[in-house]
Amino acid sequence: MGNEKEEVKEEQKREDEEDEQVVNPWEVSAKDGGKIDYDKLIDKFGCQRLDSSLVDRVQRLTGRRPHVFLRRGVFFAHRDFNEILDAYERGDKFYLYTGRGPSSEALHLGHLVPFMFTKYLQDAFKVPLVIQLTDDEKCMWKNLSVEESMRLARENAKDIIACGFDISRTFIFSDFNYVGGAFYRNMVKVAKCVTYNKVVGIFGFTNEDHIGKISFPPVQAVPSFPSSFPHLFPGQDNLRCLIPCAIDQDPYFRMTRDVAPRIGYEKPALIESSFFPALQGETGKMSASDPNSAIYVTDSAKDIKNKVNRYAFSGGQDSIENHRKYGANLEVDIPVKYLGFFLEDDAELEHIRTEYGAGRMLTGEVKKRLTEVLTELVERHRRARAAVTDEMVDAFMAVRPLPNMFY
Amino acid sequence: MGNEKEEVKEEQKREDEEDEQVVNPWEVSAKDGGKIDYDKLIDKFGCQRLDSSLVDRVQRLTGRRPHVFLRRGVFFAHRDFNEILDAYERGDKFYLYTGRGPSSEALHLGHLVPFMFTKYLQDAFKVPLVIQLTDDEKCMWKNLSVEESMRLARENAKDIIACGFDISRTFIFSDFNYVGGAFYRNMVKVAKCVTYNKVVGIFGFTNEDHIGKISFPPVQAVPSFPSSFPHLFPGQDNLRCLIPCAIDQDPYFRMTRDVAPRIGYEKPALIESSFFPALQGETGKMSASDPNSAIYVTDSAKDIKNKVNRYAFSGGQDSIENHRKYGANLEVDIPVKYLGFFLEDDAELEHIRTEYGAGRMLTGEVKKRLTEVLTELVERHRRARAAVTDEMVDAFMAVRPLPNMFY
Repeated sequence: MGNEKEEVKEEQKREDEEDEQVVNPWEVSAKDGGKIDYDKLIDKFGCQRLDSSLVDRVQRLTGRRPHVFLRRGVFFAHRDFNEILDAYERGDKFYLYTGRGPSSEALHLGHLVPFMFTKYLQDAFKVPLVIQLTDDEKCMWKNLSVEESMRLARENAKDIIACGFDISRTFIFSDFNYVGGAFYRNMVKVAKCVTYNKVVGIFGFTNEDHIGKISFPPVQAVPSFPSSFPHLFPGQDNLRCLIPCAIDQDPYFRMTRDVAPRIGYEKPALIESSFFPALQGETGKMSASDPNSAIYVTDSAKDIKNKVNRYAFSGGQDSIENHRKYGANLEVDIPVKYLGFFLEDDAELEHIRTEYGAGRMLTGEVKKRLTEVLTELVERHRRARAAVTDEMVDAFMAVRPLPNMFY
Repeated sequence: MGNEKEEVKEEQKREDEEDEQVVNPWEVSAKDGGKIDYDKLIDKFGCQRLDSSLVDRVQRLTGRRPHVFLRRGVFFAHRDFNEILDAYERGDKFYLYTGRGPSSEALHLGHLVPFMFTKYLQDAFKVPLVIQLTDDEKCMWKNLSVEESMRLARENAKDIIACGFDISRTFIFSDFNYVGGAFYRNMVKVAKCVTYNKVVGIFGFTNEDHIGKISFPPVQAVPSFPSSFPHLFPGQDNLRCLIPCAIDQDPYFRMTRDVAPRIGYEKPALIESSFFPALQGETGKMSASDPNSAIYVTDSAKDIKNKVNRYAFSGGQDSIENHRKYGANLEVDIPVKYLGFFLEDDAELEHIRTEYGAGRMLTGEVKKRLTEVLTELVERHRRARAAVTDEMVDAFMAVRPLPNMFY
């Protein structure tokens, strides 16, 4: 009977845990439908907070103003980013690695965040960059055909290229095309170090999951190791790697960092972002199944205006009278959050926050400004994407040495 | 309490099963240390017995005498081999697929059996052949380094080439070099169809096994599909595949045949051999940890004579008197078994069996004849292997169209 009590306690513990927020590469959900608690996430994952002294250091080392996403805390956590900066300060090299799972044709603004930031890092540090398109992952998780996943990877590559990456320092690859050779050999080295129990613990797989899922984590792990790219980094097996990504990808790289020293490789460093909120409010990531939860790079000016006006959750009060009296609740206001991502001008943002927070500015005015900012961003992206030819995609994805690797 | 009884019954059932013979790609052991029961294996695996009518049909279709291994029942089981012959009779094409896990430098005679037979099939049917060297598997199961596994793969390729394969119809590949592209895409297609529970059921993996093992079965599965070799079989996705192998590899191809129709591919056909017995007796496969359990292709004439005389288990009686009286027990006699594999002359073999079984021929005489046969075989192999240059290995392993594909 003692056992039964134990079981009940275990059960309750599990239920308690189920009430907690869940953040992994396939699910992001806050506790009780609230906001993601990023402090708790840093504790749970064991990464470090990216504090202002690190941001200042980036400014000093690169001689340019840190990106909006850095100075406003969108990228808020890291692992060993300080070591990357130490190395850079000594004149040592590093490379960047980021990626995307190509599960949809059109990207939304949240998808652009890591790429906009990675472009800034590439420009500021003048370092090479590898971008992995995990078409194999999406084929397995979204049940897309191999051909459709590969088509989406290529379409998404156009959006990524449109972010302005330097072709002389950038290699984009799709797993279905690039896995093999040195990359596959590293996959096997990693896989040898990770038990089934371990991936169950990290990723929550079950015995009913197919072995494709269980096989996948090494595929996302090994771009962290320069020897996976012999055409880019020959003889540079100890080159450090810095991974800009959203924090839901941390489980892959916790695993990678755990394995790296056991196979004689350097641990990758990470710089991790919070999630870009849905129009309806900041309770997690956007939902692909609800097109009105996000602004897409394919949305027209009219779509954007309509979505912002109809769906962007407002922290303003329910009557003008109350709004003037109490001011807007900036903590929950989506237009202000979005402006925090995309309005470059710090002074203007501060002005809006003050005036709107004090009730002197109305929701309609803030939404109008946001619509302008987003429309400009999306139209600029669309023009850039339209200029991306198939030849450019081929060039970015060609397995080749990079002519302009460092500095 | 009913449940407890059920559990005890389940436990007993498991223990009963544990007493049974075990045959999988990593373990072959007979019940109670006895002989492998091949009839039971056919039942358990669900394959078909290769009967004399099929052997006759091979003779009729190819216009040549069936190989010793076929007419003496070394290859004793199959799956859909009749369909391959039907197709061949209609003028349809097929290709052969076999392989080796390169875990050791020197091959023993048991390792040569599938290759000698495959060479015969290639010559008789004039069909293309792919040979997979699973260096990734051995790196993971034997804990060899990537580099050492790849070196062994190349060394083993020389022994395989020495068996006399037709370079105009043969592609040899190592997984560490060849996995990728169309091959990897097929791996993902297969992996999507196989749950963790399923591989546990087929291969006996446990939760403490690393994910490299769990990821491996699709690697051995996909050479069964012509689309894994776009340089060999472009546009021939429905080409049938025939796999000559030892029956311990059946679990891989049971899985492959289960998956094939679900991903729109043809099931591979199989032709399966029994195990080549150890010198010490027919209780399973030879042990790599005991060099005296097998004749290696690197053994000298003196080694062979010594091993045959000292270690080959004899069915002869313990005194000459008793031997003359009772004759040899051919059922357990290893020299006679070995002659059954390698003495081409049916009449001479029959003569030895009769005379030895009747006690008119002594063990020493049989062993002497076996030593001659093996020495000739091993020396012929050694000469052929010495003639294999690095350039020939490169040529067999080059990813290229085959000039002389069919008939």
